[in-house]
Amino acid sequence: MVAVDAQGSRARPDQLVTEEPMEIRVHGPGEEPAPLVVTMRTPGNDFELAVGVCLTEGVIADPDEVASVAYCVGPGGDQQFNVVTLRLRHAVVASLKARRFVSTASCGLCGKTALDDVEVRCGEVAAGPTVAASTVRALPGRLGEAQAVFETTGGVHAAATFGADGTLISVREDVGRHNAVDKLVGEALLARRLPLSEEILMVSGRLSFELVQKAAVAGLPMLCAVSAPSSLAVKAAERFGQTLVGFVRDDRFNVYSHPERVAVDR
Amino acid sequence: MVAVDAQGSRARPDQLVTEEPMEIRVHGPGEEPAPLVVTMRTPGNDFELAVGVCLTEGVIADPDEVASVAYCVGPGGDQQFNVVTLRLRHAVVASLKARRFVSTASCGLCGKTALDDVEVRCGEVAAGPTVAASTVRALPGRLGEAQAVFETTGGVHAAATFGADGTLISVREDVGRHNAVDKLVGEALLARRLPLSEEILMVSGRLSFELVQKAAVAGLPMLCAVSAPSSLAVKAAERFGQTLVGFVRDDRFNVYSHPERVAVDR
Repeated sequence: MVAVDAQGSRARPDQLVTEEPMEIRVHGPGEEPAPLVVTMRTPGNDFELAVGVCLTEGVIADPDEVASVAYCVGPGGDQQFNVVTLRLRHAVVASLKARRFVSTASCGLCGKTALDDVEVRCGEVAAGPTVAASTVRALPGRLGEAQAVFETTGGVHAAATFGADGTLISVREDVGRHNAVDKLVGEALLARRLPLSEEILMVSGRLSFELVQKAAVAGLPMLCAVSAPSSLAVKAAERFGQTLVGFVRDDRFNVYSHPERVAVDR
Repeated sequence: MVAVDAQGSRARPDQLVTEEPMEIRVHGPGEEPAPLVVTMRTPGNDFELAVGVCLTEGVIADPDEVASVAYCVGPGGDQQFNVVTLRLRHAVVASLKARRFVSTASCGLCGKTALDDVEVRCGEVAAGPTVAASTVRALPGRLGEAQAVFETTGGVHAAATFGADGTLISVREDVGRHNAVDKLVGEALLARRLPLSEEILMVSGRLSFELVQKAAVAGLPMLCAVSAPSSLAVKAAERFGQTLVGFVRDDRFNVYSHPERVAVDR
């Protein structure tokens, strides 16, 4: 890498966030593994990502459906770390063929090429906790402290869940915003912690429709972001009963839906 | 929307970037329109987006293949502004069925669920221009001046093309980074300006593998971004012969590939 400033240019070592494709395959008893999706992701927490994608996209609904998660083994016997296979306890391939399903780093709308399918059915989330405004304001700082990669590369998104008192519960990073959330959700599924009815999701970037949808599948009652929500994100959060908080920065924030969960300190 | 700061809370009008699904359909002579993709996008320049997606995803390669682009007309005779149909001069539906193809706001890897398909074949871009470092440094400011939406909503991505002297050629905005680039490319295709061998692409966010790939399809020799590139973006740019510039901010920038196109002023 060549760094250029007003004084001239000089060679510097790269510090890049890693982006690599990962293919997720699924199969049931007696079925050949079928490709489900290729996502561009930052390697790490790959099994969580695979399980999380399968949950938020509706391929599975319960951890008991998963018999195993494994990296594929190549012809020479070596593991292939960019292919993850979920073996389910029930048949799945036929129903997959009925849907079309491709995802990338920031892709959350998958397998649905008709507009009617965009809004997958999510029930309303639980009432969940009330959160002090001072706690909301503290979340970006705590997310930043919890991030391992961002400081050095500047190119990774983070998502974290916090308790109602602002205690960090879990944090995941990825080159794709949606992957970071899918990793969080997959981790919670594998740990049998779903639904996350008492937790707050905080993300480093914007809040899109798909992120709201994924959070609803995980039962998250409150979503906070450093940057802006989209119009459709707000509409979805209103519908799913979620509190949507944007522009959490500089000791301020905006509440776009269901403000009843935010307790203003004075 | 409720704005909360240390002084308390007050109601404020929303200023949100619009995010709405758009379905792209394609068909050839005598064929029923087939759904190609649903993308979450900011409405506007929809035909450019539809044509751009078809080009960067390899459904078409030339503007002469397109017979018409139109909004669908609903049963009552009213136009449906979230469904855009491309009529091509040749059959297309059968080949579409052979690929799976779904996209969203930030989704650039489409119709390819095997890793082997991730790297679509793009020829090397042309040598193109040499660009002064001072011109590169000026691009973020010029992109900001050209943006219509970002200042008020804070939630939209921008992409623009500039001449080698820094003159703005075209700018597009979208809730999805990839859509903004697809709109630019679609506009250029419809105007028969491809390949963009003498232009520089500048984007407001990060540089992913998919953005590099889309730019390569459009023949763009140089890509600049306010934020970081990913590792795979750099690898792809090296392979396609493109100059990749990241972190263009605060009068500095980093060149990650093919630095020969950047003329350091001293």
